[in-house]
Amino acid sequence: MVNHSASLDRVYQALADGTRRAIVERLVRGPASVSDLARPFEMSLPGVLQHLQVLIDAGLVASEKTGRVRICRIEPTALRAAEGWVTQQRTGWERSFDRLGDVLEKSGDNDD
Amino acid sequence: MVNHSASLDRVYQALADGTRRAIVERLVRGPASVSDLARPFEMSLPGVLQHLQVLIDAGLVASEKTGRVRICRIEPTALRAAEGWVTQQRTGWERSFDRLGDVLEKSGDNDD
Repeated sequence: MVNHSASLDRVYQALADGTRRAIVERLVRGPASVSDLARPFEMSLPGVLQHLQVLIDAGLVASEKTGRVRICRIEPTALRAAEGWVTQQRTGWERSFDRLGDVLEKSGDNDD
Repeated sequence: MVNHSASLDRVYQALADGTRRAIVERLVRGPASVSDLARPFEMSLPGVLQHLQVLIDAGLVASEKTGRVRICRIEPTALRAAEGWVTQQRTGWERSFDRLGDVLEKSGDNDD
């Protein structure tokens, strides 16, 4: 549980940056080389590599060397974990809100 | 777009901490006072208030003074934004993966 929590820390930390989210948005469309990823950003290759490393450490991205090119791709498990926690909170909140609605409605009926 | 991106930065940054996620998990069940929130954590009240402020700045939590008690509650809009971006990436990835499957299947048919 502690480990799971620590890994969610790293995932959300990695997503808390516009450039890193843009890298994820690009990789969602399919694998890409590091230089393909660097191209749209006005950023040095080391800068992009630093962001990539944060995404790799969080488990959101994997990279593999194919010949002389390093290819990056999405690791869906971490993406699903990030989605899972927040979806659980949103649905939990909606359930609480519905229950509150029911309570108010019943208390309204009693007032009649 | 820049503002939206900056607000997602703050939301994911706020969620990148186990104590702050635990506060969200508690508030999802219903509003709570600051001291109710502080109770389960072995943490000083100022420590909890600091985490609360991060959640409030990110728009995930709102607080209101009722008499002498400050009551905190979830702000669902920020929760939905955090969910929306990550769900979009996950479904985007699944679509790309399915397309790749189709391509591989077709190329397999051609090999026959």
